[in-house]
Order: sequence, then C-alpha cells, then structure tokens
Amino acid sequence: MAEMGKLAMLRRAVDDAKKIISEAIADLLDIEKLTLESSNRFQIADLGCATGPNTFYAVENIIEAVANKYKIKHKNPQTLEYQVFFNDRIDNDFNTLFRSLPFPRPYFAVGVPGSFYGRLFPTESIHFMHSSNSLNWLSRVPNYVGDINSPAWNGSSIYCRGDAKEVAEAYLSQYKKDMETFLNARAQELVGGGLMALVLGGRQDGVPLCQTNMGKTYDFLGSCLFDMATEGIISKEKVESLNLPQYYPSSSEIEELINTNGCFCIEKMETFPGPGKHFYDVQMWSMIVRAGFEAILQNHFGSEMVEDFFERYAKKHADNLFMFDRSDVQNLLQINIVLKRKVC
Amino acid sequence: MAEMGKLAMLRRAVDDAKKIISEAIADLLDIEKLTLESSNRFQIADLGCATGPNTFYAVENIIEAVANKYKIKHKNPQTLEYQVFFNDRIDNDFNTLFRSLPFPRPYFAVGVPGSFYGRLFPTESIHFMHSSNSLNWLSRVPNYVGDINSPAWNGSSIYCRGDAKEVAEAYLSQYKKDMETFLNARAQELVGGGLMALVLGGRQDGVPLCQTNMGKTYDFLGSCLFDMATEGIISKEKVESLNLPQYYPSSSEIEELINTNGCFCIEKMETFPGPGKHFYDVQMWSMIVRAGFEAILQNHFGSEMVEDFFERYAKKHADNLFMFDRSDVQNLLQINIVLKRKVC
Repeated sequence: MAEMGKLAMLRRAVDDAKKIISEAIADLLDIEKLTLESSNRFQIADLGCATGPNTFYAVENIIEAVANKYKIKHKNPQTLEYQVFFNDRIDNDFNTLFRSLPFPRPYFAVGVPGSFYGRLFPTESIHFMHSSNSLNWLSRVPNYVGDINSPAWNGSSIYCRGDAKEVAEAYLSQYKKDMETFLNARAQELVGGGLMALVLGGRQDGVPLCQTNMGKTYDFLGSCLFDMATEGIISKEKVESLNLPQYYPSSSEIEELINTNGCFCIEKMETFPGPGKHFYDVQMWSMIVRAGFEAILQNHFGSEMVEDFFERYAKKHADNLFMFDRSDVQNLLQINIVLKRKVC
Repeated sequence: MAEMGKLAMLRRAVDDAKKIISEAIADLLDIEKLTLESSNRFQIADLGCATGPNTFYAVENIIEAVANKYKIKHKNPQTLEYQVFFNDRIDNDFNTLFRSLPFPRPYFAVGVPGSFYGRLFPTESIHFMHSSNSLNWLSRVPNYVGDINSPAWNGSSIYCRGDAKEVAEAYLSQYKKDMETFLNARAQELVGGGLMALVLGGRQDGVPLCQTNMGKTYDFLGSCLFDMATEGIISKEKVESLNLPQYYPSSSEIEELINTNGCFCIEKMETFPGPGKHFYDVQMWSMIVRAGFEAILQNHFGSEMVEDFFERYAKKHADNLFMFDRSDVQNLLQINIVLKRKVC
C-alpha cells in the first residue's frame, strides 16, 4: 500500500515531465544524423529505473516522440529499432524489473547494473538518456558530517537542513563532486547531439530545505528517532550518526554546475510544485515516507523498531500540521531539464 | 554441493572449448573491419548465461583472444571497448548474476532477459556470440509426445530414447524448428563476418540416446518415478505426462541444419567425450543429476517427493552400474562449433 502511494507519486513526476521531453525530441533531436550513423538503431537509457512500472511509461513516452519525429522524415518507420538500457544500482531487484516488462514491447530490453556515478556504457553508444527521481541521491554520505570532532558534524539532524553553514557546505561539496562525475560519464556515453532529460527535486533559490515540506518531514522523522532514543528503545549515538545521502539543489545551483562542466547545452528547463505537495494529506504522506525510508531505517537500526517508529511518525506529523501555512515556498520543486550533448 | 558438481562440469565444458574459440578469433575474425564500423566497440553476447561464474570465464577467454588479435593490428589497444550482453530466460536469477560479476572487469556488463528462440538484439549489433550447454534445451515439449491417442505418445519414458520412431521424429522435428528459429534470429543480430561459438551435448552418429550414459540416467530417473507411482506416492498419469524438452543431436544432424539454414559458414567443428564421462562416479553423477533436475521434478510433482526420489535414484544407479561396459559409444559427445555469419 505504501509502495503504491510512492509509485503513484513518481508516476506523476513522469507524467509532469512528458510534455517537455516530447517537445525536446520534436524540436531538438537531429534524428537523421543520429540514426544514419548507427544503422537505424536508437539507444535509450533510463538511469535509476527501480523495478517499474514508471520507467516503462517514461520509455514509452520517449519512443512515441522519437517515432513521431522519425515518421515525418521517413516513409517506412518500421526500420528504426529501439534498444532500451534500464539502469539501477547493483542491489536493485532486476528480477522483478524483467518480469514486469511489457509484452509485447516496441524495443529490445536490457538491464545495466551499477552506479550512475561512474561509467555504465561504451563511448558514444546512447542517443537519449533519461533519469527521474534519482539524482537527489548522493553517491555517499558527505565527509565530516558524521565526525563528532568536525565543525560539519550533523549529529542533531538526519539530513542537510541548510541552516548550518558547515553542514550545508559539506553536502553541497559532495553534490558538486557527484554531479561532475555524473555529467562527465554521460558526456562520454552520449553521442554528439544526443539528448538527456533529468527530472529531480529541488528548492526555490535561497530557501533552505528545512523550510520546505520535505525538510519538515525529515525533522519529524529525526524528532521521532530522538524520542525513541530518550526512551532507550534505540541508541542516541545511532540516531546522531544517521545522515541521509540526499541533496535538493536550487535551479541556479544545478544550472551553474552544468555550465561549469561545459559538455552540455541547457536546452529546456522548467520548475513547478513537486512531490512535497502531498504534505498536508497525512495518511498519503505517511505512506510515501514509509515507502521511501523503511529500508534505510531497517538497515541502520534493525527491523524491530520500524512499526513503532512509523506510528510515531504519523502521529507527530498530524499533531504538528496546524503550525504550517500552505504558502508556495514550502513546496519542494520538481525541476525538469533537457540537455544536449555538445558536438566535440 | 550438487550445484558445485554441476558448475564444475559446466566449467570443464567452457575450458574444453577455450582452444577452438581462441583459434577461431585469431584466424577468422576480421577485427579491423568489424571495429572500424562501430566506433571501436566490440559487442559480445553469451546466450544461456545462468548465474555465473562459468559465463564470466567464457567471456574472459573471448576478450583475451580479441585483445590479442587487436594488439597485433594496433599500437594502442586501450581504445577497444567491450560490451557484454548476458542473456538467459526471464526466470533466470539475474540478481545473483549481477552481484557475482567480477569487479573490476574489462567490459561493460548488461543483462538481457528472454528466450534465445526469438530476437534478443537489434539488427547487426553483436560481433561475437557464445552459447555453452544451453542449446540442448528445446523451446517446448514437442507436439504429440504427451498425447495418449497419438502414435508419438511417450508415456513409458521421460525423454527421447531414440528407439521409437514416432517419438524420435516428434523430437527431431521440434529440434529442427527451434534451431532454424535460433539461427535466423542470430543471423539478423550478428554483423556480417561476426563469429558464433556453440558448445552443446550430442550423440555419435547412429547411436540413439538410450544407449548413452545420459540415456541410462534418464532411464534410471524414469524407473524411480514409476516405482514411486506403483507405491502410490505420486500419480502414474503425472509420470507418463513428464517429457523432458531436451534433444541431443548427432554432429551430422546439426551440420545439416546449419547448411540448410544457409546464413552461416561452419568454420570449425570438433567433438570429444562430453559430460556423460562422470557416469561411473555414482556420487558425483548423482550430484550433477540432482542439480540439473531437482527444479523440473519439483515443478511437476511438488517438493515433497524430492528427497525420497534422489535417494532412490542414487541407489538404482549404483545397483545397476555393473551392467554397463565403458566403451566410448556410451559417452555423450561435447560438440564445439564455430560459425561465421556470411556477409550478405
């Protein structure tokens, strides 16, 4: 049930990005050049695919748009073949992904295990890359935030609130490093002129995460954990050592990173209210939170505390909801970006 | 333990085929032409990869041979990139495969779910195909062998003994159909001039399977099942309806099929004593048999009968071993074939 809520939310993100992706393919993809060079084969990668079905919707949108574009140029559209590379970390459940694949499907399907913070594909072998709801996860917890002797120690919170300078800098530094690695790897793998669509969560410029609904969610989570530590159910040191490897950039932060990297042109960019918008529906939001964080908490604290914990979380969220107004600034943003690989 | 015995046997098949594959790559692969046309990317597929590790050994052998060949032609061998497509049926455990991948590895790894009796890859996208110990499995149980009203009914045996004309014809007919489908699909996927190495079990010309060690194994298996049916432990109809979808061709049968298909030249072909050679080591052979057939029996009869069954099997095998001489004819063959895709 919790998983369904999360899936519905992520599906919404895929739907919200459909228009910008279709338009980008119609306006920007030089399909004749790309496919002539690779024997009428069009190769698509979805990075952070999870186990479906949202990755399948996203891929179908892309193929539909490419096929439309191709139809305009060619009399016989059947000659274009699609190969789709579904990528996620090696601990993803690829068995479930493969068994959920649509059948029949208009593409050859392939699974690619490995972190996208590194090379995944041969040089210039992909024509279109897509990643939805994955790029907020860092490759690791930033340095020093778990070190009690460092000014960047983040013992009192489980995430990057954004209001403590050293902690924010440590997270931003890791985010910059990860994005640079990500962009460099993709720049090698995408053909010149190939497109990349990124869908991720972000903050409004100048608004620290702790002022957003996502931040408040993390504060409630952290507060419940400290309550349980006070009651002796879990250890306080364990709570202090938990730091979520997540970063929510502002549009200008990510824009600057892409421009500094220099391998891609930003062709399209849009933002609108993102996943945080379900915050005021306590039941729905509790389900989403549980789907997103149950595994992390189990790994860190063991499975005994989980039921008790999520009961506490739902209660705390409901009890404190009246304190927050519904101004737009509290919403996290969904950032949709379309990049084009510069031709070297 | 049983799984280890099977793995060791299959590893032996990979090792036995190493020489012919290395020689084929050295002698026959037009590496300059193949790699120049695809931006220095060399794409390898292993069909029926299971969960490793034997597929990794096979792939490493292939890459080593290709790299050696490439080194002779080029000053900077680092520019050749390898992408390996690990294929097996959709019910294969790809999670285990991916988590067993060597690290670091000199190739980009990809999993491809689906039956190789059908298309798996885009047109002309693979340079080297390999399949070891998989092509004896048919796509399905042949028509009529399970039909009590048909002259091809195979109720008294669980496999194609080869001494009943109609049953043998039904199996051969399915084998021909499957191989034709297999060869046509691969002919489309391999680049012109690309190579395909097939390793499979076979019979000596004119020797029916029931005269080989593999046939005797199946006879023991079937006999134990009928014993259990007589004792009322499993149903007789269930035993009669079990037909293994396996075919062991003779060299001349497979040669004829490849020539009739017409898309490939047979570049190299060799046969030598194959997996049946462990037949006289009762403990080893019982382990191999259990690893190979436990899942099939569980699916057909349920899991309750399995322990009892394999105890009976080991006893029957040991009790009857004295009856058989050790002449070469009783050994199943390992057939190694290297094919080259004709250039259209």
